[in-house]
Amino acid sequence: MAIATPEKKKTKDRILDTALDLFNLEGEPNVTTNAIADELDMSPGNLHYHFKTKADLVQALFARFERKVSSLLILDKEEQVDIVEAWMKLSLLFEIMWVYRFAYRDLAQLLAKYPPLRRSTAQLLHRKISVAQQGCVILGISKDEVDVGALARNIVVLMTYWISFELACDVQGEDRSRFGRGAYQVTQLLLPHLDEAATQAIRSLAGEYLDV
Amino acid sequence: MAIATPEKKKTKDRILDTALDLFNLEGEPNVTTNAIADELDMSPGNLHYHFKTKADLVQALFARFERKVSSLLILDKEEQVDIVEAWMKLSLLFEIMWVYRFAYRDLAQLLAKYPPLRRSTAQLLHRKISVAQQGCVILGISKDEVDVGALARNIVVLMTYWISFELACDVQGEDRSRFGRGAYQVTQLLLPHLDEAATQAIRSLAGEYLDV
Repeated sequence: MAIATPEKKKTKDRILDTALDLFNLEGEPNVTTNAIADELDMSPGNLHYHFKTKADLVQALFARFERKVSSLLILDKEEQVDIVEAWMKLSLLFEIMWVYRFAYRDLAQLLAKYPPLRRSTAQLLHRKISVAQQGCVILGISKDEVDVGALARNIVVLMTYWISFELACDVQGEDRSRFGRGAYQVTQLLLPHLDEAATQAIRSLAGEYLDV
Repeated sequence: MAIATPEKKKTKDRILDTALDLFNLEGEPNVTTNAIADELDMSPGNLHYHFKTKADLVQALFARFERKVSSLLILDKEEQVDIVEAWMKLSLLFEIMWVYRFAYRDLAQLLAKYPPLRRSTAQLLHRKISVAQQGCVILGISKDEVDVGALARNIVVLMTYWISFELACDVQGEDRSRFGRGAYQVTQLLLPHLDEAATQAIRSLAGEYLDV
C-alpha cells in the first residue's frame, strides 16, 4: 500500500510543478491548496491524498529544491576546477534559484510560517558558504591574503538575496533578464582576487549576462 | 486645529517608539494596533486619533527611518572624506538599520502588504547605490579599473539583507553581537581596491566588530 507507483509519483510531481508555478506567480501566501487543485482539474480530496496540508506541499517543494542545489554543491578537491566550470556551476545555481524564486522573494516569511524549514535552510546556507569558500581556494584565492570565509559569506548573501533586492529596487516587478545580473554581481566579488587569465575568462563569460 | 502641539507630537512619537519595539520583537504581522495601545496604557480610540490605520503607522515609521538614513546619505564632494569617516557612516547606517530591523527581517512581505512603501523604498535603495558609488570613488577606487556600479550594488545588497541572512543561517534567532559582522563584511568588498594605508585603517576599525 505504501509503495509509490509511477502513476502516483507522476501526480505528486504534477501537483508540485503547479504549486511552484502559482507560488512564483502570486506568492505563496496567496495560493490555497484548492486553487492548486483547481488549476490541475483535480478534486481537493485527490490533492489532499498526496499532500495532507499546504505545509507538507511547501516542504516537499523545498526538499526538491534542496536536492537540485545539493547536486551542484559538490567540489572534487582532487580535480582541478577551472574558472569556466566554476562559472557554469554558479549560473546553474542561479537558474535553479530562479525556478524556485517564490522561496527567495520571501524567505523570512516562509521560515516564520513553516518552522520545520528553518533547520534545513540554515544547513543549506552553511553548506553553500563552505562550498563557496572551498571554491575560492581552488580558484587560487589565498587564505593568507584574503579572509576567504568573509568572501564566501558575501557570495552566499548576494546569491540568496539578489532576487529580493532586484524586486525591492524596481516597483515594476519581476523581469527575467535583470535577474541574470546576479551571476555577474558575484563575479565582481571574485575578480580582484583572480589572476589575469581567470579575470579575462570571467569578463568574457559574464559579458553574456550583461548583454541581456 | 491642524497645528500639532508639542504634546500631540510627543504622543505620536511614543506610539511610533512602542510600535517599533513590538514589531522588532514579534514581527509586524503579529502586532495589532490594539496591542500597541495596550502596551501604552492608551485607549484604542486615542491611538486611532493619531494613526487611522496600521498602514498609516507603518508608513510613518518607514518615513522616520528614511529621514534618519537620508541624513547620512550625503557626501560632500568638495571635502576629502577619509576611510575613517566612511567607516563611521557605514557603522551608523548599520546601527539605524538594527533599530528598525523589523523592516529588514521581512522587507519583501512589508512591500507586498503596504504598496505605498514600494516607491519610497526603491528610491532609497537607488540613492544608497548612488552614494555608495560616489563613496567608492572618493575613497580612490578607480572607475577605469573597477565596475564601481556593480561594487556599489553589492555593498547595498549586503547592507540590506545582512540581518535576514544572519537570521536564516541561525535557527536560534537574533543576537545583537553577530549583527555587527555586517559592517565587517562590507569592508571585505572594499579592501581589495584600497591602498595600503586605507587597508590598515579599515582592518583596525573592523577588528573591533570581530572581537564581539
